[in-house]
This record gives sequence, structure tokens and C-alpha cells, in this order.
Amino acid sequence: MSKGTVSILGLGAMGSAVAARLRETGYATTVWNRTAAKTEPHVQAGAQAAATITEAIEAGDIVIAVLLDHASIHQNLEPVAAELKGKVLVNVTTTTPNESRATAAWAAEHGITYLDGAIMAVPGMIGQPGARLLYSGDENAFGIARPALETLGTAEYEGADAGLASLKDMALLASMYQMFGGFLHAVAMMRTVGVPAADTANEVTGWLAAILPAMQGYAPLVDSGAYDPAPGQDVAFTRPALASIIAASREQGVGADFLEPLKKRLDELAATGRDTADWVSVIEQLTIR
Amino acid sequence: MSKGTVSILGLGAMGSAVAARLRETGYATTVWNRTAAKTEPHVQAGAQAAATITEAIEAGDIVIAVLLDHASIHQNLEPVAAELKGKVLVNVTTTTPNESRATAAWAAEHGITYLDGAIMAVPGMIGQPGARLLYSGDENAFGIARPALETLGTAEYEGADAGLASLKDMALLASMYQMFGGFLHAVAMMRTVGVPAADTANEVTGWLAAILPAMQGYAPLVDSGAYDPAPGQDVAFTRPALASIIAASREQGVGADFLEPLKKRLDELAATGRDTADWVSVIEQLTIR
Repeated sequence: MSKGTVSILGLGAMGSAVAARLRETGYATTVWNRTAAKTEPHVQAGAQAAATITEAIEAGDIVIAVLLDHASIHQNLEPVAAELKGKVLVNVTTTTPNESRATAAWAAEHGITYLDGAIMAVPGMIGQPGARLLYSGDENAFGIARPALETLGTAEYEGADAGLASLKDMALLASMYQMFGGFLHAVAMMRTVGVPAADTANEVTGWLAAILPAMQGYAPLVDSGAYDPAPGQDVAFTRPALASIIAASREQGVGADFLEPLKKRLDELAATGRDTADWVSVIEQLTIR
Repeated sequence: MSKGTVSILGLGAMGSAVAARLRETGYATTVWNRTAAKTEPHVQAGAQAAATITEAIEAGDIVIAVLLDHASIHQNLEPVAAELKGKVLVNVTTTTPNESRATAAWAAEHGITYLDGAIMAVPGMIGQPGARLLYSGDENAFGIARPALETLGTAEYEGADAGLASLKDMALLASMYQMFGGFLHAVAMMRTVGVPAADTANEVTGWLAAILPAMQGYAPLVDSGAYDPAPGQDVAFTRPALASIIAASREQGVGADFLEPLKKRLDELAATGRDTADWVSVIEQLTIR
């Protein structure tokens, strides 16, 4: 006996991984894709293929949308709003928080129980240890879909604001890409003297792991706003330090592009008399006024 | 009996920590500072104060310079080049690799045995576990000074090119500031929905620690240059992902300054037909041609 009926809309790499995992864990899965050929391996493995998106929605109590982007969500789902009524729609398509909120508002208008999701994993990690999925929106929808969602990875409910899962996803990805940018910058500098990337990877990995806990030290400073006088490293010290790193980078023929915006924001602090403030107060310069 | 004679030039926070540690571990220390008042606590603790820089140099077999910057090194040391002849000069002042190389060349001209150093620690860490100091330049000088230097922290010799210690220091600091920039960006995004920095610090710390090992996976790709077709995430996928993060950030009223240069460099790859290349090939865009 199946654990329940789930329809998956979209069979890109992620949609396929989601559909396969649900089928393998005992759910009766129905798959739909804009180009039907992608359904074939799923059908061979025991899934149902839906000829139309309407048919797919009708077959599942839970409908999981794993489409390309926000535009494709609306293009595909608006014509079938009536069919989605009474279903639990889980949208794990990558969208911005405001796009998620817009979809939640649209779903509410049409009586659709809506849960937004963000997948903090690559397709190969789905169903494996370490896969983490964030959800936000209708808490009741989360409760209903939870057993199915937990087969994909850790399922965390972030709150009723449908944008929260996407926001946390985007914030963590922002930190990740900046860390990787810093790594690539370090590799680019070191290879100018013949140091292989593999060696720099070991150095950077060890160094950043050792320095990661400093973030927990910065947090109370940001939360309190008590930046000045600096409890830690001040703006006056940090600006020339960054200038040296940027100069060293250029001397070696490596662009310091990824680091220059931080220097510019610190320059703004210095220009407005905040040399004695802690350098982490640079976060206040990021707020768009 | 003292372990040897060491003179410390410069008693800022770092110079004072270095002088104190050497004295405490049994070295006969002589201290000099441009403004003499800073020598007093050291004298009270058992160090000798030198009235002139010449006197300081004469008192120590090893001379450790911990001055403000490259300009202050040359301003203070050029007049006493003759006195430094035959001494081991260890310069741990923060300089760029080319500045270190210039000082090494000047030292060689004057028969001074020169070792350049970079301190990967804050003053409070000197002599404590976790303090790491990098050295490059004259290997013989490193051998002579090593017992004294090891009292300060782990002493690593990077090679004969006097710029190497500074280069690695700058590369690691570049990666560190970019990681912290990413952390502050994430905090700025999450606090727009009321999430305290302390909570985001926990999230980011856990996330980045989990994702750190990916760097070791990127390294062989950079070393081989076999970016296209992408073994991992390609440029075509990464550009819209970054665009979403930047859009999400702005939607929340947070500037994505620190991340935009990475997006721009990926745009260059796309504009030159490298959509199918691995996104880490963006490192090649950092080389100044």
C-alpha cells in the first residue's frame, strides 16, 4: 500500500531526484514535465506519467512544484488554480522571498494550501544525510506534507511568512559564495608563486575553520549596535590592513575585485568619523536607505 | 643565564606582546620605541631600554622589527644599516610581498641577514596555542632565530623568496575578510525579518563548516584548468542563482555590494561563450592581463 499520493511538476535534475526519492520510499508518484520525454525513466521505475498538468494535479494530494523559476510557476499554475484548490501545493522552485510571498498571496486567493520551500542541497544529496530543506508558509500544509518531505532531507519550518525559507536560503548562499570567492582569490594569489590550488585549499580550509567561531563573537556586537569604541578591531586598523591585501594582490597580478567593496564601505565609515568604531559596524553600510 | 639576546624595535600592541613573551621565556631583551615612554613597563618587568635605535641593535644578536609599516622600516633602519651588519634582522612588520622583497634586497646590499615574517595572530595570542607565524627569506637566519621565534607561536619557513610569508598571510587574510563579509551580508538580510545576529551566526557557522570541504574538490579543477564542460556547477546555472541572491538582498533593503563583483565576473564568462564551463573558472577572470 502506498504511503500517499504525490505529484511532481518539473523533472529537471532536482525534480527528478525528488520524484525518485518519493517513489523509492513508498509514495504513489505522478510526474509531469513540459517536455514529456523526461517522464520515461520515471515510468519505467514505477511512477505514473501525467499527460497534462491538470491530470498530474488531480492524481496527487500533495503537489510539489520544482520548476525553473518564478515566471514558470505562474505560467504553469495560473491556468490550473481551480484544480489546485483543496490540494497542498509545495513550491520548492528557487525564488526570491518576495516572489514566494506573491505566490502565497495568489494561492490564498484561490483557496490553495501553500507551502514554500528552499532546498539547501544539490540533487545528488536528496534523501541522503546532510540534505536540508527549509519551508515556510501554511503551517497546516507543512504538517500534512511533512512525512513525505522528510524523505527528501531534514525538513525545517521557518514560519508563516512564505518568504522566510527562501530568505534564509539566499542569506546562507550569499555567505557561501563570498567564502568561495575568498578562497578563489587566495588560490589566485598563491599560484603566482607556484603554489598549487590543492595546497592553498588545505591552508584556507584549516584557517577558515579556525576563524569561523569569531562570527559568534561578532554577533552580540551587531545585535547591540555598541560599535564605538571598538571592542575588537577598529576601522582605523582594518582599512590599511585591507589596503595592504589589495595592494599585495595587485602586485602579484591578481584583481582584488571581490574584496574592494568591503574596503569602500570601510572608507565610508572613516569619512564619517567612525575610525574608532569596530570594523564589523560596516554591516550598517549595507542597509539601503 | 639568558637564552640569548634579542632586541625588539617598536612597542605597539604587537611589539609589546613579542617583547614580553621573549623576556618571559628567558631571553635577555632590549626594547626601543620612537616614543620612549612605552619602554617603561618593559623595564619594570626586567627588560633593558635602549635610548637610541643604534644602542638597541648593538645589544641583540637577533633584532626583531615590529614597526608600523614599510615606510617606517626604511625610515628607521636605513640610518643604522652598518650597525645591522652581521645581525639577524627579523622583520614582522605588516608589508606587502614586494615591500618584503625590497627590504630583503636592501638588507643583502648591506650584509644584513634578513628574515621576513608575518604574524597570523592578534597580540593576545602571542605565545598561546593557535598563534602561527610565517617566515621567509634567509634560511640560515631562520635557523638561528628559530628557538626565539618558536616561543611566539608555531614558526613556519615558507622559502627563500622574502615575499612568501607576507603573500600567504595576505592570501589567507583575503579569504578571511571575504568570509566575514559574507557573514555580515547574511546577518543584514536575516535581521530584516527580526532574526538576531546571534541566530544567524549559528546558522552561518554550521553551514560554512559543512561546505568548507568543497574547496578541496574545487582545487584539482583549478590546477588542471579542465573547466569546460563543467564537472560541477556551470556558469549558466550560477549566474541566475547569484542574480536571485542579489535580488533577494535588495528586496529586503540590503545592498549586495560584496557579492556583485562575483556576478560581474561570471557575466564576463557568459559573454565570452563559457556558459558550460564550471563556475570556479571565474578565478581565471581575476588575473590582471
